[in-house]
Amino acid sequence: MSIVVVGTVAFDTVETPFGRGENVLGGSATYFSTSASFFTDVSLVAVVGEDFPEEHVTFLQSRNIDTVGLQRIPGKTFHWSGRYGYDLNEAQTLDTQLNVLMDFKPVLPESYRDAEYLFLANIDPDLQMQVLEQVRKPKLVACDTMNFWISSKPEALKKVLQNVDIVVINEGEARQFTGEANLVKAARQIIALGCKRLVVKRGEYGVLMFTAETVFAAPAYPLEEVFDPTGAGDTFAGGFMGYLANTGDLSEEGLRQAIVFGSVMASFNVEDFSLNRMKRLEYKEIQARFASFKVLTSFRDISI
Amino acid sequence: MSIVVVGTVAFDTVETPFGRGENVLGGSATYFSTSASFFTDVSLVAVVGEDFPEEHVTFLQSRNIDTVGLQRIPGKTFHWSGRYGYDLNEAQTLDTQLNVLMDFKPVLPESYRDAEYLFLANIDPDLQMQVLEQVRKPKLVACDTMNFWISSKPEALKKVLQNVDIVVINEGEARQFTGEANLVKAARQIIALGCKRLVVKRGEYGVLMFTAETVFAAPAYPLEEVFDPTGAGDTFAGGFMGYLANTGDLSEEGLRQAIVFGSVMASFNVEDFSLNRMKRLEYKEIQARFASFKVLTSFRDISI
Repeated sequence: MSIVVVGTVAFDTVETPFGRGENVLGGSATYFSTSASFFTDVSLVAVVGEDFPEEHVTFLQSRNIDTVGLQRIPGKTFHWSGRYGYDLNEAQTLDTQLNVLMDFKPVLPESYRDAEYLFLANIDPDLQMQVLEQVRKPKLVACDTMNFWISSKPEALKKVLQNVDIVVINEGEARQFTGEANLVKAARQIIALGCKRLVVKRGEYGVLMFTAETVFAAPAYPLEEVFDPTGAGDTFAGGFMGYLANTGDLSEEGLRQAIVFGSVMASFNVEDFSLNRMKRLEYKEIQARFASFKVLTSFRDISI
Repeated sequence: MSIVVVGTVAFDTVETPFGRGENVLGGSATYFSTSASFFTDVSLVAVVGEDFPEEHVTFLQSRNIDTVGLQRIPGKTFHWSGRYGYDLNEAQTLDTQLNVLMDFKPVLPESYRDAEYLFLANIDPDLQMQVLEQVRKPKLVACDTMNFWISSKPEALKKVLQNVDIVVINEGEARQFTGEANLVKAARQIIALGCKRLVVKRGEYGVLMFTAETVFAAPAYPLEEVFDPTGAGDTFAGGFMGYLANTGDLSEEGLRQAIVFGSVMASFNVEDFSLNRMKRLEYKEIQARFASFKVLTSFRDISI
């Protein structure tokens, strides 16, 4: 089954203690779709400006990503600048130039409207709702968001959360949205809004997936070299949704495997700047790292 | 097999957002030995003052803990005061009155010197070495430490780390000791000193166990009610060492199970102030939570 993702395609300028990337390819929809493309067909909805080089579009197409929904309008492409310190857990935003994103009206091409899987990456919750209304009968809808929308548009965001199946957000955002310090309580509150599942991303500490009755904990893969965490969350979501769309298995067991595939994809992405690691990633490496996750987390049952 | 633990027996005054405990029973050796006592025999070496109530000694003995090594000397018992905010991850120390701890000379009763399992809880590394020299032929020695000793006695601490089998420390301490932000690299450096294994405690994010070749990740148990994190690390270590001493299985598989038992014990301990939860804990609850850890972390393998 194919996935539609709505989000950003951007230029990033990123500084980490290990180097600097200037005007490199970035954006939530870029990371998501590239990651998901290892598992299924992906169709992308985003906007870029006149300055967006054709080589990036060619790259997305080389990953079999449908770019019919990639609008090109007058103006400059969205540009994010950020810096990471040694702990690499949180980016400090240095500059955000919305540019063409300010006029973004996501319109789904007719061929996208029967999509069974939809991912609403982090954009204005009003736009997320507009997209949701254009899709006819999705089997699974997931969304992301960020602190900016939690504080500026809490009611619009709430409406989105009530209309999706899975919410994928950061630990700090779950706490911010609910005003609840205890993460389990915060998760229960978000699920009580109406979504069925909450996936909480915790950076180097991994992921927790909640339903009203269950919890699944997956660690992040311990890495000796982390160069650039940019896009890790969207790469995670791409692996997660990509695997679900590939198998169509939405059982608890299927979703747990998808969480691990998402974690595998994120663990590769942080090993290099921008999408460089994704560009040279092979499927057999993904399989091998899934097996490493098994080894990382396995322990024998007791019989006492 | 029995364990000897050397550490502190203390009065704690603890404030959390959920309440306050004044002059309650605390101390690393107290938490460790109570936790380990659910799995094996424990002998305790520590010092208290004349003000230490007999009821606390009676409690320890009721858990079958050997208190022959609990010295009582003139003066007041060690007293720690601390406060936790809503995130509950790190205590702010408000006051430390070492009192009788200043004159502590750990002397192992003759009956302790053939101990096969030894835990050197967080005390002056010079004292940890003195204890190590009094034990004849231990099968397994583990130690803890804290930021204070890392900055004030790094060389003495290094000597301890070179003479134990397993080092159990906090994530921040591993980074502080090595000056390395990447935790995997920090772990490799500590193991290269000579200990075989490093167990890194990450509070609500769980535990990582490293050898030169392996890594094991265990999450912390997600709890809706965390009242007081005091003693969680020592309670973890008590469950970990207690289970190892119970089974004698020092294989990677045995150690992984022990990590989970340690995590189980810590998850109970934080549910109430001081050792209150430990005092009413039953073994069948421990077994049930171990089973819950299995459910929490399990995911199906792939066959693609």
